[in-house]
Amino acid sequence: MSVRPGIITLLTDFGQLDPYAGVMKGAILGIYPEARIVDLTHEVPAQRVAEANFALRGSYAYFPEGTVHVVVVDPGVGSDRRIICARSRKRLFLAPNNGVLTGIVEAGDEVREVTNGDLFLSGSISRTFHGRDVFAPVAAHLAAGTAFEQVGDPISDLVRLDLSEPQWLDERTILGEVIHVDRFGNLISNIREQDLLALPGGPGMVSFRNQEIGCPVESYAAVPTGTPLAVVDSFGFLEIAVSSGNAAHHFNATLGDRLKVTARGS
Amino acid sequence: MSVRPGIITLLTDFGQLDPYAGVMKGAILGIYPEARIVDLTHEVPAQRVAEANFALRGSYAYFPEGTVHVVVVDPGVGSDRRIICARSRKRLFLAPNNGVLTGIVEAGDEVREVTNGDLFLSGSISRTFHGRDVFAPVAAHLAAGTAFEQVGDPISDLVRLDLSEPQWLDERTILGEVIHVDRFGNLISNIREQDLLALPGGPGMVSFRNQEIGCPVESYAAVPTGTPLAVVDSFGFLEIAVSSGNAAHHFNATLGDRLKVTARGS
Amino acid sequence: MSVRPGIITLLTDFGQLDPYAGVMKGAILGIYPEARIVDLTHEVPAQRVAEANFALRGSYAYFPEGTVHVVVVDPGVGSDRRIICARSRKRLFLAPNNGVLTGIVEAGDEVREVTNGDLFLSGSISRTFHGRDVFAPVAAHLAAGTAFEQVGDPISDLVRLDLSEPQWLDERTILGEVIHVDRFGNLISNIREQDLLALPGGPGMVSFRNQEIGCPVESYAAVPTGTPLAVVDSFGFLEIAVSSGNAAHHFNATLGDRLKVTARGS
Repeated sequence: MSVRPGIITLLTDFGQLDPYAGVMKGAILGIYPEARIVDLTHEVPAQRVAEANFALRGSYAYFPEGTVHVVVVDPGVGSDRRIICARSRKRLFLAPNNGVLTGIVEAGDEVREVTNGDLFLSGSISRTFHGRDVFAPVAAHLAAGTAFEQVGDPISDLVRLDLSEPQWLDERTILGEVIHVDRFGNLISNIREQDLLALPGGPGMVSFRNQEIGCPVESYAAVPTGTPLAVVDSFGFLEIAVSSGNAAHHFNATLGDRLKVTARGS
Repeated sequence: MSVRPGIITLLTDFGQLDPYAGVMKGAILGIYPEARIVDLTHEVPAQRVAEANFALRGSYAYFPEGTVHVVVVDPGVGSDRRIICARSRKRLFLAPNNGVLTGIVEAGDEVREVTNGDLFLSGSISRTFHGRDVFAPVAAHLAAGTAFEQVGDPISDLVRLDLSEPQWLDERTILGEVIHVDRFGNLISNIREQDLLALPGGPGMVSFRNQEIGCPVESYAAVPTGTPLAVVDSFGFLEIAVSSGNAAHHFNATLGDRLKVTARGS
Repeated sequence: MSVRPGIITLLTDFGQLDPYAGVMKGAILGIYPEARIVDLTHEVPAQRVAEANFALRGSYAYFPEGTVHVVVVDPGVGSDRRIICARSRKRLFLAPNNGVLTGIVEAGDEVREVTNGDLFLSGSISRTFHGRDVFAPVAAHLAAGTAFEQVGDPISDLVRLDLSEPQWLDERTILGEVIHVDRFGNLISNIREQDLLALPGGPGMVSFRNQEIGCPVESYAAVPTGTPLAVVDSFGFLEIAVSSGNAAHHFNATLGDRLKVTARGS
């Protein structure tokens, strides 16, 4: 990885009420003042690893090669859960070993346990805020050029999340569920564009909670204002939306709600 | 525009729950790693173009010349609405052609339609997230020095918002309305300082929803704690506030509420 | 202070709905384009000086020496309250003279009143937004290398907050109170680690609102999920938490709630 842009992204559940994310930035800048730090989001619901995983999977590819992606959604802080660093897709990922890198780190990627205390914050290391004491300083060192191999020894037993996957009810029907509701109230499902393309003749009717929405359209603006629609979103997932509206409110929808897609062809 | 500070500001309705703004920053840094990116706000209420316009009008002048201001409040994404780039006031403005630049871009400013695909994100362009696929990369190229003329051909048919303007009820009386409520609960009206100065003898009594507030004062601290007041705010608008309090709560006030100012002189 | 990393931190009650913090950054970059600006938080509850003080006390030490820390939680803006700049702990602090630097600035630190208009925003200075017109430009000049002595004359009459301190009920018992609730619902008290160590034999039973919680543990993960616990947090304060849960919800707790610690030894 010769590319080294010095970019560090932060993805946490710290919120923005407290200065926790700011303190991490201080710890980074104290080690590597030229770091370019980007917030992905700090509003992951507290301790929700799957939500953090979803946000990271959709984001990392849009950053330059060599970026160091840091995730601190870490309900196990202070336990014997390990901290890992993975080299994958020409990027580095620093995270608790709690499954948050599922679907990103693949077989063949090198993963190491982060144990080298020389890279941690000097002084004593707390047992409740590894974001500040371990993640931030290690990320700073890596972004500044410390070799990946320095963080610690390779490990192979990565924790993996059981990601929600759509089911094929028969050869013509996919059943999926809502896995994320964004700030616009768009209902993002676990059905991907490639699933739709595997349907005979492509996707036909999309139903949400047994209500027919229609065939997928090209954009929110393809239907009149206030009308529900199905669309493949910009990250490749099928979503239910309302044109210039809020589908979560419109349908009083929530995570886990079901949607079904049937084949267009016979 | 020889000044080129490499500053890009972002003004969106993306919120901070999702990593959408972070992904835009990734796309920018991939093209122009030295960009200095500043968030104006990502909390514009979803798809509210007039609110974005208000925020931008109050902000841009405090940034250096050469700054590239990007607005992605874009209910028409995916429709045939165009994306425009305006050169105005020694700055560049990149926005959907939906009126969000009203009151900023003036007659004589050059406006171009953004059509040069060489400046877009490489790969396919989504129809739902132009912030990532078009706005961010074009802004990065412009901040890095790509000539404004490269974005596309000039256009002249700019969409304009019908901005709320105060009315003169007679020569001695201005009627305005609340156009923004800020986080402190201050009620910002569409009456400007120059309107007040046009009153004979300057402004006298300010009334809010038929309740007399008093003559405009110099600062929040000019009246006792908990007392309502009228003040010309730091952006030049007349606002109703409560000293060390929250006027929106105090008055149970909302957008569109009326205020009236009468002349001091006879 | 020969170290000069060009870092400026911002701590305000501006929220993120409005572009106020963004405008401050514009004013900074217009003077010092190389500034590295870090948000501590903009979500201090409106005009709550003690909350801002708590956030700053926990944060500043993690930033490099030479950092300029700016606080704009300023209910007295426009009054005759003064703006001060303190040189303390090899850092600079710029704040209203309202007590927000209590516990940071110590006897022997040099404090000056900020009066040098050459360092302010050019043009007229508003009486309602000194963050933009005074704090931001002065911080930019200081971060860029303007001598501390240039801001104005020394003063000695610093306003100090009456910080909440724990009480010793007898030689074996400390009574404290909740002074902050963080985004995870952790209840942070005013009892510090050194208070606990002063108990004979160290800390024994911690009680919260007359309910026995147990002895302090090492980390959130030391007790089963859903169980209340007491822990010395990463900033050195005793806090009440719930393992993988939310103590504020669990106890329906609020600021000022009492907790008691008794000595372990006899």
